Amino acid sequence: MSDSWPIIGSTTWVVADGYIPPESSGPEPDMTSHDSVCILNAGADDAAVELFVFFTDREPLGPFLLRVAGRRAHHQRINGLREPGVVPHGVDYSLLLHSDVPIVVQHTRLDSRQAANALMSTIAYPVPASR
Amino acid sequence: MSDSWPIIGSTTWVVADGYIPPESSGPEPDMTSHDSVCILNAGADDAAVELFVFFTDREPLGPFLLRVAGRRAHHQRINGLREPGVVPHGVDYSLLLHSDVPIVVQHTRLDSRQAANALMSTIAYPVPASR
Amino acid sequence: MSDSWPIIGSTTWVVADGYIPPESSGPEPDMTSHDSVCILNAGADDAAVELFVFFTDREPLGPFLLRVAGRRAHHQRINGLREPGVVPHGVDYSLLLHSDVPIVVQHTRLDSRQAANALMSTIAYPVPASR
Amino acid sequence: MSDSWPIIGSTTWVVADGYIPPESSGPEPDMTSHDSVCILNAGADDAAVELFVFFTDREPLGPFLLRVAGRRAHHQRINGLREPGVVPHGVDYSLLLHSDVPIVVQHTRLDSRQAANALMSTIAYPVPASR
Repeated sequence: MSDSWPIIGSTTWVVADGYIPPESSGPEPDMTSHDSVCILNAGADDAAVELFVFFTDREPLGPFLLRVAGRRAHHQRINGLREPGVVPHGVDYSLLLHSDVPIVVQHTRLDSRQAANALMSTIAYPVPASR
Repeated sequence: MSDSWPIIGSTTWVVADGYIPPESSGPEPDMTSHDSVCILNAGADDAAVELFVFFTDREPLGPFLLRVAGRRAHHQRINGLREPGVVPHGVDYSLLLHSDVPIVVQHTRLDSRQAANALMSTIAYPVPASR
Repeated sequence: MSDSWPIIGSTTWVVADGYIPPESSGPEPDMTSHDSVCILNAGADDAAVELFVFFTDREPLGPFLLRVAGRRAHHQRINGLREPGVVPHGVDYSLLLHSDVPIVVQHTRLDSRQAANALMSTIAYPVPASR
Repeated sequence: MSDSWPIIGSTTWVVADGYIPPESSGPEPDMTSHDSVCILNAGADDAAVELFVFFTDREPLGPFLLRVAGRRAHHQRINGLREPGVVPHGVDYSLLLHSDVPIVVQHTRLDSRQAANALMSTIAYPVPASR
């Protein structure tokens, strides 16, 4: 497989439980509370990923543009997004990602509000290609 | 995609491991132990979601009615449900959600019974549309 | 939906990461380290579930028989299985569940080896019905 | 089912969020921070699994070869891989696993950088067989 990496995954993914814990404990930036989307682009072509943030009580924010080169991983903290806006901390949201080539998305949160950090992770929801 | 959001997800979802930890530590309400369903309605139409709670030794409770507007996220603590009943703390349960339009559901628990909080999360089980 | 619950899920499920942490801290039995399978049988008919435990270096153990009544949830600690054997603590394993009616399975571990408990959870892997 | 175990799972799996926490607290090796792939080979035939590691800014590393006998579980710490290289700690990566027979893969991380350990787990992403 090392000569021709498969193009695998889906072009559309959803993370329903988005939240950036508003406080942190421990050394920055490693132990700073964060919410992340971890993306694999296993194919040869670069991926242009549009990320939209949905809120409880206002219009979606986006698209944020993420570039993931072919055969590369990209882990993106939602805290780190700056353009076209900043995702507020301590607010419920959901994420929709749309890529021009298939990718795989996993969602992970590190919450260090209390003395020891807590972690959670899940594969995101891949929207079937046929829909 | 900002002009015509896709209608994505499934209309029926299951969370098999439901449990509200019966104690909490840390400031309320953020660090109160809770069990949540996080819902994205990415489509334009509002969603009417019926939520049923299944128990070990008695008939299911529900439907609880959740309204999620189009293009909106809704994170619902099971602790916060009041009508047609209250889900007891410290009791095993499972959840079935049925929506009139496709949604995406993620399950998350924050457990602050001990000194530092613990987190867990998983995409819920999407029942295939063809069944 | 309250009159005719849908029969939803798969008849075969896999949990690849099984492990019972060998120590615990905090009050028993709630904070005892455990590994659990959480099952929903949303249909009307009772489910007879066979659970097999696969190990690193010896033959599988099972079947353990679990009965889940129709319209009921059942959360089973692997620690609590007794017949036809006991699953050792501190040993890697995987689980295969096979049911005579569709069910949904979620895997959760509580690890209280250190001062504060840690939690992890994931939907199990549903084997497609057509295979 | 004990006489003819089903061959279940997929031959290709992705873990998008790979990371080995660079510090640990608590007794080794159990509480050493680690990132693991947990594999079930429920079929009768042995599995030859190739594992590739994708990085943010350099070419993929691999294949690492894992042998999982038929009817056996194998939990592999990424920390423990040695040939053809070592996966650095504190660096973002993703994993692609390809097996010659169907397997099931779950991803789990134990993070003991702070006083109490944190856990996260998710089913990996199974690439559909038809693609």
